[in-house]
Amino acid sequence: MSLVVVGSIAFDAVKTPFGERERMLGGSAVHFSLAASFFCDVRVVGPVGDDFGPGEYAVLEGRGVNTDDIERVEDGKTFFWRGHYEYDLNTAHTDETQLNVFGEFAPKLSEESKAAENLFLANIQPDLQREVREQCRGARLAGLDSMNLWIDIARDSLVKTIGGVDLVFLNDAEIRMLTDQPNLVRAAREVMAMGPSVVVAKQGEYGAALFTEDGYFALPAFPLETVSDPTGAGDSFAGGFLGYLASQDGWQDEASLRRAMTYGSVIASFNVEEFGTERVARLTREEIDERFEGFRRMTALEAAPA
Amino acid sequence: MSLVVVGSIAFDAVKTPFGERERMLGGSAVHFSLAASFFCDVRVVGPVGDDFGPGEYAVLEGRGVNTDDIERVEDGKTFFWRGHYEYDLNTAHTDETQLNVFGEFAPKLSEESKAAENLFLANIQPDLQREVREQCRGARLAGLDSMNLWIDIARDSLVKTIGGVDLVFLNDAEIRMLTDQPNLVRAAREVMAMGPSVVVAKQGEYGAALFTEDGYFALPAFPLETVSDPTGAGDSFAGGFLGYLASQDGWQDEASLRRAMTYGSVIASFNVEEFGTERVARLTREEIDERFEGFRRMTALEAAPA
Repeated sequence: MSLVVVGSIAFDAVKTPFGERERMLGGSAVHFSLAASFFCDVRVVGPVGDDFGPGEYAVLEGRGVNTDDIERVEDGKTFFWRGHYEYDLNTAHTDETQLNVFGEFAPKLSEESKAAENLFLANIQPDLQREVREQCRGARLAGLDSMNLWIDIARDSLVKTIGGVDLVFLNDAEIRMLTDQPNLVRAAREVMAMGPSVVVAKQGEYGAALFTEDGYFALPAFPLETVSDPTGAGDSFAGGFLGYLASQDGWQDEASLRRAMTYGSVIASFNVEEFGTERVARLTREEIDERFEGFRRMTALEAAPA
Repeated sequence: MSLVVVGSIAFDAVKTPFGERERMLGGSAVHFSLAASFFCDVRVVGPVGDDFGPGEYAVLEGRGVNTDDIERVEDGKTFFWRGHYEYDLNTAHTDETQLNVFGEFAPKLSEESKAAENLFLANIQPDLQREVREQCRGARLAGLDSMNLWIDIARDSLVKTIGGVDLVFLNDAEIRMLTDQPNLVRAAREVMAMGPSVVVAKQGEYGAALFTEDGYFALPAFPLETVSDPTGAGDSFAGGFLGYLASQDGWQDEASLRRAMTYGSVIASFNVEEFGTERVARLTREEIDERFEGFRRMTALEAAPA
């Protein structure tokens, strides 16, 4: 089955205590689609400028991502983000944002993208997310990511958009903020009451928690000794998660959702070990499966002997 | 096997968004020993004043905790702590501390306590912890807890004390602070290099992580809709953890350590549902075993189908 993602395609300048890059491929739709590409056919939708060259296309196409719906604006410049991280790598500090072609973005899906069975609305303005959702009515599974900015300035629109998807990814702080409910279990339930049947609370270095109507699952992050650049971790997580579900007939099955959590965490863990897309671009399915088993080992809990 | 704990015995005044208590039984040694009492024989060592009455002894003795080594100071007053929590319950704010008899505490273990096979040094000044450790040389298993204050003002002494125990419980922020190493995996390894073979990183609402020489295990916290008072959660966790290990012959066995993590998390999760010792004082073994199975269900991860 195919999976279409709509979101940002960017050049990022990133500085962390472990190095820096002045201009590298980034953006939510890029990190998502590379991660998802290990599991299903992926189509990426988003705007770029004419500075987006063969080298950038090659990273996506090298992972089999379909780039036909990348909208290339002649005389335009690609979205640019500059940020840095302090020593603890937990918070991204934005130093510069140039929306460029992204400022005028009005997503138009091709017939092929409209026909995709699975849809991911990466973190863009919630009205735009809803427009895309309406163009892709037939999707059996739609998910979205968002952020504190939209909760702040476009909450009503975001709630409406959430009402039209099956699955929501948010940081735990954002789930609390959206619902004004400090208890995460209750807050997640309130988000489900808006429409989605699945809520995933991303918890950064602590992992992620999965809320469904009757279920709860929590997975710690993979313990890494080297974290170089957290940029794109959340989108890589969502990409591994939805990419895996897109490959499964019964995506609502609890065991499938738990494996999706794990594949998402696996790809995110590789993503942060190097800068930008560097590590995921050369990742192999064998490495993924090996780390999946690592997660199984590090969470295995035997019953107490009788 | 028996387990002796040395630490504070206190009266606490606590206010949270969900209620308040003006004077209730508390202290690290109290929370620890109640939690451990479900698994093994426990002896509690610590000072109280003559305001510590039959009602307080009854809570401990009601759980079978041996109180013979509680040092009762006539004309003295029991340690008193007053604190409050904000809406998110993550941080305890201290409003008042009266050391009282605790200020003069020079721990003296009875022959029975010196002979205990298992020892827990709750969070007290590290020189005192070391004096206790020296009185209880024969213990096959010794653990300690500490806090940012001692890392700040008595780091060298704390490192020396850590060198004499098998198992360290600290918050993840404290592990980073102690080692000046932001990466938790490396930081935990540096603590192990000081002597202990096991390091447990407490992560509050996110659960806890277990580091051993070859192993890693992480367990999320139990998802609770009602958290009334987090006071004593860490000591309840350590009590359930060490109490379970004290009941096991091969405490270094990885499966035993993982179950210890889980029993600790189970007791801590009950502890925070009500104020002070209220919930744990009437907890049953059946409730513990049921929640243990709840942890097994919520962390179970099946292999991917071939």
